[in-house]
Amino acid sequence: MPKDTVFAAELPWPEYQSRVKDGSTPILIPFGSMEQHGHHMPMHVDVLLPTEFARRAAEALGGLVAPPFTYGYKSQQKSGGGNFFPGTTSLDGMSLVSALKDVIREFARHGNRQICIVNGHFENSWFIAEGIDLALRELNWGGIHDVKVVVLSYWDFVDQAAIDKLYPEGFLGWDIEHGGVLETSLMLRLYPDLVSLEKAVDHPPASFPPYDVYPPHPDWTPASGTLSSPRNATAEKGDILLDVCTRGISAALHTEFRPKDSVAAE
Amino acid sequence: MPKDTVFAAELPWPEYQSRVKDGSTPILIPFGSMEQHGHHMPMHVDVLLPTEFARRAAEALGGLVAPPFTYGYKSQQKSGGGNFFPGTTSLDGMSLVSALKDVIREFARHGNRQICIVNGHFENSWFIAEGIDLALRELNWGGIHDVKVVVLSYWDFVDQAAIDKLYPEGFLGWDIEHGGVLETSLMLRLYPDLVSLEKAVDHPPASFPPYDVYPPHPDWTPASGTLSSPRNATAEKGDILLDVCTRGISAALHTEFRPKDSVAAE
Amino acid sequence: MPKDTVFAAELPWPEYQSRVKDGSTPILIPFGSMEQHGHHMPMHVDVLLPTEFARRAAEALGGLVAPPFTYGYKSQQKSGGGNFFPGTTSLDGMSLVSALKDVIREFARHGNRQICIVNGHFENSWFIAEGIDLALRELNWGGIHDVKVVVLSYWDFVDQAAIDKLYPEGFLGWDIEHGGVLETSLMLRLYPDLVSLEKAVDHPPASFPPYDVYPPHPDWTPASGTLSSPRNATAEKGDILLDVCTRGISAALHTEFRPKDSVAAE
Amino acid sequence: MPKDTVFAAELPWPEYQSRVKDGSTPILIPFGSMEQHGHHMPMHVDVLLPTEFARRAAEALGGLVAPPFTYGYKSQQKSGGGNFFPGTTSLDGMSLVSALKDVIREFARHGNRQICIVNGHFENSWFIAEGIDLALRELNWGGIHDVKVVVLSYWDFVDQAAIDKLYPEGFLGWDIEHGGVLETSLMLRLYPDLVSLEKAVDHPPASFPPYDVYPPHPDWTPASGTLSSPRNATAEKGDILLDVCTRGISAALHTEFRPKDSVAAE
Amino acid sequence: MPKDTVFAAELPWPEYQSRVKDGSTPILIPFGSMEQHGHHMPMHVDVLLPTEFARRAAEALGGLVAPPFTYGYKSQQKSGGGNFFPGTTSLDGMSLVSALKDVIREFARHGNRQICIVNGHFENSWFIAEGIDLALRELNWGGIHDVKVVVLSYWDFVDQAAIDKLYPEGFLGWDIEHGGVLETSLMLRLYPDLVSLEKAVDHPPASFPPYDVYPPHPDWTPASGTLSSPRNATAEKGDILLDVCTRGISAALHTEFRPKDSVAAE
Amino acid sequence: MPKDTVFAAELPWPEYQSRVKDGSTPILIPFGSMEQHGHHMPMHVDVLLPTEFARRAAEALGGLVAPPFTYGYKSQQKSGGGNFFPGTTSLDGMSLVSALKDVIREFARHGNRQICIVNGHFENSWFIAEGIDLALRELNWGGIHDVKVVVLSYWDFVDQAAIDKLYPEGFLGWDIEHGGVLETSLMLRLYPDLVSLEKAVDHPPASFPPYDVYPPHPDWTPASGTLSSPRNATAEKGDILLDVCTRGISAALHTEFRPKDSVAAE
Repeated sequence: MPKDTVFAAELPWPEYQSRVKDGSTPILIPFGSMEQHGHHMPMHVDVLLPTEFARRAAEALGGLVAPPFTYGYKSQQKSGGGNFFPGTTSLDGMSLVSALKDVIREFARHGNRQICIVNGHFENSWFIAEGIDLALRELNWGGIHDVKVVVLSYWDFVDQAAIDKLYPEGFLGWDIEHGGVLETSLMLRLYPDLVSLEKAVDHPPASFPPYDVYPPHPDWTPASGTLSSPRNATAEKGDILLDVCTRGISAALHTEFRPKDSVAAE
Repeated sequence: MPKDTVFAAELPWPEYQSRVKDGSTPILIPFGSMEQHGHHMPMHVDVLLPTEFARRAAEALGGLVAPPFTYGYKSQQKSGGGNFFPGTTSLDGMSLVSALKDVIREFARHGNRQICIVNGHFENSWFIAEGIDLALRELNWGGIHDVKVVVLSYWDFVDQAAIDKLYPEGFLGWDIEHGGVLETSLMLRLYPDLVSLEKAVDHPPASFPPYDVYPPHPDWTPASGTLSSPRNATAEKGDILLDVCTRGISAALHTEFRPKDSVAAE
Repeated sequence: MPKDTVFAAELPWPEYQSRVKDGSTPILIPFGSMEQHGHHMPMHVDVLLPTEFARRAAEALGGLVAPPFTYGYKSQQKSGGGNFFPGTTSLDGMSLVSALKDVIREFARHGNRQICIVNGHFENSWFIAEGIDLALRELNWGGIHDVKVVVLSYWDFVDQAAIDKLYPEGFLGWDIEHGGVLETSLMLRLYPDLVSLEKAVDHPPASFPPYDVYPPHPDWTPASGTLSSPRNATAEKGDILLDVCTRGISAALHTEFRPKDSVAAE
Repeated sequence: MPKDTVFAAELPWPEYQSRVKDGSTPILIPFGSMEQHGHHMPMHVDVLLPTEFARRAAEALGGLVAPPFTYGYKSQQKSGGGNFFPGTTSLDGMSLVSALKDVIREFARHGNRQICIVNGHFENSWFIAEGIDLALRELNWGGIHDVKVVVLSYWDFVDQAAIDKLYPEGFLGWDIEHGGVLETSLMLRLYPDLVSLEKAVDHPPASFPPYDVYPPHPDWTPASGTLSSPRNATAEKGDILLDVCTRGISAALHTEFRPKDSVAAE
Repeated sequence: MPKDTVFAAELPWPEYQSRVKDGSTPILIPFGSMEQHGHHMPMHVDVLLPTEFARRAAEALGGLVAPPFTYGYKSQQKSGGGNFFPGTTSLDGMSLVSALKDVIREFARHGNRQICIVNGHFENSWFIAEGIDLALRELNWGGIHDVKVVVLSYWDFVDQAAIDKLYPEGFLGWDIEHGGVLETSLMLRLYPDLVSLEKAVDHPPASFPPYDVYPPHPDWTPASGTLSSPRNATAEKGDILLDVCTRGISAALHTEFRPKDSVAAE
Repeated sequence: MPKDTVFAAELPWPEYQSRVKDGSTPILIPFGSMEQHGHHMPMHVDVLLPTEFARRAAEALGGLVAPPFTYGYKSQQKSGGGNFFPGTTSLDGMSLVSALKDVIREFARHGNRQICIVNGHFENSWFIAEGIDLALRELNWGGIHDVKVVVLSYWDFVDQAAIDKLYPEGFLGWDIEHGGVLETSLMLRLYPDLVSLEKAVDHPPASFPPYDVYPPHPDWTPASGTLSSPRNATAEKGDILLDVCTRGISAALHTEFRPKDSVAAE
């Protein structure tokens, strides 16, 4: 067994049990997808990045990281390019909702009371909310009323100071960041072997009308699949992002989750 | 991008597309669980092992390995100790069925026609069968009639010659192998850092009556969670298992899946 | 029968049939909710407003307006105050998805090929996307491949020029507009009898951390239920909003939907 | 806000809350459909009529009327002509059941304990029963055991004396009243602008064999879609119906629902 | 194998196949329940009676009888006494719908094109309709468009002449026949050993208000569970019923189902 | 009413109630299928056999037998020949799970606390497990925590001594017993009129590779549908099987279920 791992599934069950049974150890669930991320990045960016943020937060908090959700909700055109790309492999909404509901119910059975969903794929957001709501409803039916679930997407912790450094020519919004500077910089810093920046396609930012169409018009999405150009991504920007997001996430969970002592004292 | 990876999600989408669009590349989906495996092994044994067998088969066949299913069906007492252990984190049957159905439908959309489920958790078996059946039904509705899905559990490829070497004192059946010699030997060979053989609990093989009870009687399961003792596990036995199963799986897939040339010739 | 009504359900079926059977008439479905909107507005604001925008667009386009969806998805704290308010009456995600799927399938059976969802409740958005995706999938299975669905939320058509007029002191974002200047101004203009501006509670804009918590902290939401103060709402601002959104929606649908002549010519 | 409205969704939430929180105020849910009603009537007859009966009963009882269900279960040939007519827009059974279950659960969360479903579309009946049963089951799981739900279809309150006046030439049964004298008379009285009696098709009463066939034989249904002729409908008969049904419904709810005083006294 | 059995499940598969593969052989599915039928009758009356009518019709038509559905939808108070009686064992609506959908889809796979549901439990009616509708939808998706399903409840074939003989003191309606003269007479004729007429409770006909209440008022139902007294039941009346219903059902199916010759000729 | 019947549905409800209300009477549910069983046996073997074992166990224990589940899960190639045979009529997994969940919940409502599923169709096994798990979960939500469910397949009680007598030339495993000596011998003993041993097809035992393929290769299954030859079946072997299984099942249930006295004493 690796020393001091924060990955719950790397532990034998007795050790896991000793960590979670009193409910004081936060458990973080990375929520990703298998989704195209342009010509220069692999398709599990949305698994790798939230797993890393979950790992860092777990270390900061004394928490654990659960196995990631490796498939996510359908890519939407204006946030992920659209689900019509080869490689993008998505679940129906209810499949995702049901699986998350089940996992939360199981973690609560083990004793966990402080759960954090670390989301890496924007389109998962509402189905995560529904999965949590249904899980808490069922837990209430079963007499468990004290489970708290925090949901966060790591990019929401990038503050204005960081944005100014990351996008000196102006920031165009998270909505078209798919495969762009944010994700690419983080991958360059964390998994450089998985990035081929020379294959990245430079293109003007995607521009969408204020509505959606189904089936989508493929030509609304840049042919590469990214919604803004990754050309300005650097590992140094990745450091800035890692720093600001890790600090933000850790602070949020310190606020929301009770430290062990206070749990013990109740 | 790592050279020559077989992991589909490590590829950018254009490369993935070029591999799968004509349907000649087999894609293998590891199907695991988060489940207790005794005091000496981590809880994602059933993800790690089928992922490794999938990787080896993919290399042998020129195939790809999809992201694993990291949560599985509920542990049953007589094959996995029972779902009441802390740490064991399982899905309802329908959640698993729906997610697998979705993923198969997506892979078929990409062009895949040769899919293999590499199962590492016995209890998944019937829900995998149902997920495939529902997926093929929907694909048929959508006019796709040529998807073939092979399902296998790696231990089914252990032959009598290997059993004689692995269990010189007699083999008691796969049903009580949970956390025993088979899995432990493979883990010792592949992930020795994740095994603490000194923490393994030696105990007589579990013995169950010819029926099941719900809720289970916890005392039917050895307290450690394993159903037979792992004490005789060795990395050398792991080599035997790796060899016989990899050969068997590769041969099976060579038989069932069309090589690229024959596809191109059609 | 009222002369020249655009409301589909006010027509006898033969007249409806003559309008929709060739697929050239757009049909617009208002999608709302029963949700608290502060002390000064009724709970069906999200039904009334999209119904009115649908009516105006239908008149401009020669389209029809379907009966509204009167209940919507669960109010989320950072966009609608949270689902814990008395009066807010919401559906589970799958209920909404299923009902929308059914209605789209039925409209397609009648001959409709150009469907627009006019959304008035932010939280519906993703479940609308899922309902459409499942409906199009089933229509494809049934051999119908030419249905197009446009989804829009009316506020997305407010342009910068309008924002400058509406929020001279600065715009804080749509996310906290719940029950604020936008909705209240529109209601003052369209349904003044349903607004009691004197009961509106003035408060600073809601400010949320960059994550969500379930169950929500009620004290994150202003006690009135609105997320920004409606005090600066006026009927005149309502006129600005009606104008810019109606023009934008009509233009979008002119772009996306084929006029009758082009349909007949095919 | 309109003075003295009985429509719950026209109230701001604080007023709604003050009315329902102690459970003494009945809340009535109109349950309709979008369904063809012959050449002379619009397709939302089954929404308009139960909404009006709900309104009258709410006024008599001091109750509230919830937003209507605007889409209903599939029209059956022998009671509504069949679901094959253009315009008829129906939900699958489970969609209806789920949505009603959700709404009842929400109303109970607000404090409501006295709920009445006022049905205007015969085919809804059994799915309403199922929705209520599932809602009460879930409420019981959640510890709420005192919700009472009354279900009624307004025509069931027409007594023999009224029938004698309405059908002097003999009454042929409610089953073939679809689009006939009953509904047309009520519409003539309440919404004369929505009725074009001159377009009504006179025909002999529909006559069906004692079984059903799927897919239906369209020629079993009169081509107009009505099952009996509306020619003898009059606004005066509408008055008779309004009177007898309103009295009957109010009396029933007085019997079943506890007046506020008795609630307060408990 | 019994000579000339009409029960499909008593046949080996090759013989079944030869009967059904060209679609000319009607297959009849008895649809029952496990439901209290008073103090004098067993709880599977609603399985036994439709099975017998199906058997007779199958013999007359050269058809086959499928295994019965042994559990049905929830007993409703005004037609079956209510689901609160011990012994009454009912399915949720969706369970029934799904199972029937599956069975129809399977029979169509075998070649069957002429299916009759012979219902013995009133409350099943609407869920049967839904199951058929969903099955035909799925069959259409699969390219099968020529399946015809007839649904009948045997009592609907009792004509006025028979009613006059059965109820010389006046007929009060099928709605309160639960456990009364109709069912008891048929059971006395067909399964006299299963009837204990001496235990039958004589009581005035049940009388219900024109609405339903959930949870039901148990005291609305006669304590015995029957809704009208069975005291006037006789085996002779059973003969009358058997005769009129068998003739009616056979005639209906002769009308709806194509004889073998006409099938062969197509 | 037949004297001393053990079939619950043959009882009037008051007698049933008196038997089950204190929870001391075991209730046994036969779980079968409609599935091909070769050229020599009917398709409801898997209903008839578990019903008979349930009857015998009920007599031994003072228990009751519920109506059987007459349709089961899809036949799998390596245990039942495959679901592609005409006549085999199977349910989707979720249909089976839902129906069983409902029935268990109903039996618990009646007072039953000791339920046994007597399975006759191997493929049902996992869906039975899921149905029970979901039923117990819902019962727990409803405050019922003391229901115990035993699941058994009758062939699991055949011991080595019996195997030696039944298969003097060597036993090849239960997995290929479909339609072979075990089932045929039991049918010859219990229902000889339903067996045509002269039509049985003699063939070598089926031999399958260690994996499954979907859609199945029909030629993997012997053309007759049986997986091993029934030629050595005899009624005498049926006696051996009846004896060993009945004794085993009765002993198991004596162990698991509390006798009436001990229940009364609690």
